[in-house]
Amino acid sequence: MVEIVIAPHAGFCFGVKRAINLAEEAVKETLQGRKVFSMGPLIHNPQEVRRLEGKGLALLEKEGELDDKSTVIVRSHGIPPKKERELLSMGVKLVDATCPFVKAVHEAVVRLSEEGYFVVLVGEKNHPEVIGTLGYLEEAGGRGIVVESREDLKEVLGKEKVGIVAQTTQNEQFFKEVVGEIALWAREVKVINTICNATSERQEDVYELAPKVDVMIVVGGKNSGNTRRLYHIARSLNPRSYHVETAEELKKEWFEGAKRVGLTAGASTPDWIIQQAVERIRELTQEL
Amino acid sequence: MVEIVIAPHAGFCFGVKRAINLAEEAVKETLQGRKVFSMGPLIHNPQEVRRLEGKGLALLEKEGELDDKSTVIVRSHGIPPKKERELLSMGVKLVDATCPFVKAVHEAVVRLSEEGYFVVLVGEKNHPEVIGTLGYLEEAGGRGIVVESREDLKEVLGKEKVGIVAQTTQNEQFFKEVVGEIALWAREVKVINTICNATSERQEDVYELAPKVDVMIVVGGKNSGNTRRLYHIARSLNPRSYHVETAEELKKEWFEGAKRVGLTAGASTPDWIIQQAVERIRELTQEL
Repeated sequence: MVEIVIAPHAGFCFGVKRAINLAEEAVKETLQGRKVFSMGPLIHNPQEVRRLEGKGLALLEKEGELDDKSTVIVRSHGIPPKKERELLSMGVKLVDATCPFVKAVHEAVVRLSEEGYFVVLVGEKNHPEVIGTLGYLEEAGGRGIVVESREDLKEVLGKEKVGIVAQTTQNEQFFKEVVGEIALWAREVKVINTICNATSERQEDVYELAPKVDVMIVVGGKNSGNTRRLYHIARSLNPRSYHVETAEELKKEWFEGAKRVGLTAGASTPDWIIQQAVERIRELTQEL
Repeated sequence: MVEIVIAPHAGFCFGVKRAINLAEEAVKETLQGRKVFSMGPLIHNPQEVRRLEGKGLALLEKEGELDDKSTVIVRSHGIPPKKERELLSMGVKLVDATCPFVKAVHEAVVRLSEEGYFVVLVGEKNHPEVIGTLGYLEEAGGRGIVVESREDLKEVLGKEKVGIVAQTTQNEQFFKEVVGEIALWAREVKVINTICNATSERQEDVYELAPKVDVMIVVGGKNSGNTRRLYHIARSLNPRSYHVETAEELKKEWFEGAKRVGLTAGASTPDWIIQQAVERIRELTQEL
């Protein structure tokens, strides 16, 4: 029988759990006739989002539909301060589920820009967390850019004082490379490492586990940046690595000859999806 | 005939040239009966030091021999501030040939410690520049350590605010690794890159040249840290790399079958030694 090794820190992180708890609490207000929306999918996991929709949580489509009977949940990724003011001016009730670790990134970019640093945010240009953080930087009158790939580093050339922060779910190795590179050119660099512990732990688990198993499975939303990065790390260490969103995507042939299967999941992957994946791997490998 | 390619930035840097000029000026005072000493060998090149000894520059052996008829040259590496005061209290005349780039390291560690950073000085523990810089750190009441190898990094674990500087002649790649590594653990890191341009240019030359030649020769004092680092870089790129202090050490068999020979020299290697090495390579390769 195949051995399935689940990474110690797979699945929901503190910020995601908190956002879901706040949402579960807020949807109760629908019983009093309020409309409860989330600004974008509450988490980057389509299955869990559908589960919450079943409980009455609606995805905000048009801001025109908001009024003083509306509750809006700001998801763990946060939003730009300007957007927050806009929502409040419409009379909506805000439930702020912004992850405290993301709040720390907002504070870091404001502080760095006040201290005169050109800000480098290591992250994904289109990620809602990054868009929210850039909003805080703009509000503080700061200047800066997002570095998503080494290509973007050329925009930092010639900057004398550079302040560096990261999207909370960044790849640690890439962050390290960017910091080292910039430290060689700039006169002065200040780094506030805002990668959250949950991210480091999940990535370290993969560095530890992926080389020791025959097949490595990463479970989580295809739209989840932190899950995709776990998969990229896994694949760099073990060519038999696969990223699936749900148990249904698992394929029998992946497990041929495998004795040990490793499994991890992104910070936005709920336990019930992890459990389904484990059971499905057990079924498929018994058929082999 | 073999082609000899000399690296564009081989040999004396600004700080060393300046120290030698100041020394040549100072030794003229021996004509008026003054004794002129250098605190340690003026530069890390035994041959050039002997040339200056011939002009009357003495190596300070015992501080007991100093009096108000003595001139002491503080070499480009600098000295701790406490030592400077001791010398002045003996009535000696000080000629401060401390390299301005080294002065910038002194200022950087003082500033970082005033701002509450635990200071990491990336450098060689026994190098006079490092000893001088640590003196400034101590004087400012700061705390910190020297990181010479990855081993030393464990002393930085658990430090929350870390300020990083480098010995002016540090290896850029090692500095980059240290900065990246610390940025992953510490809450806040401030980096002031104090590696001097002369160092970067000489190292970049070797990265460029060593892989393109059949044999790579690095000329300079065996006691010169920056020369040794050029040699280490060369050897990592080209196994036929050799470090010699003088032309006499060159061996004919090194050049067997070679069509292109690369040559560079540390920041403390005088032109006349570089020239002798080039001529000797020409002789040896003509005999082959």
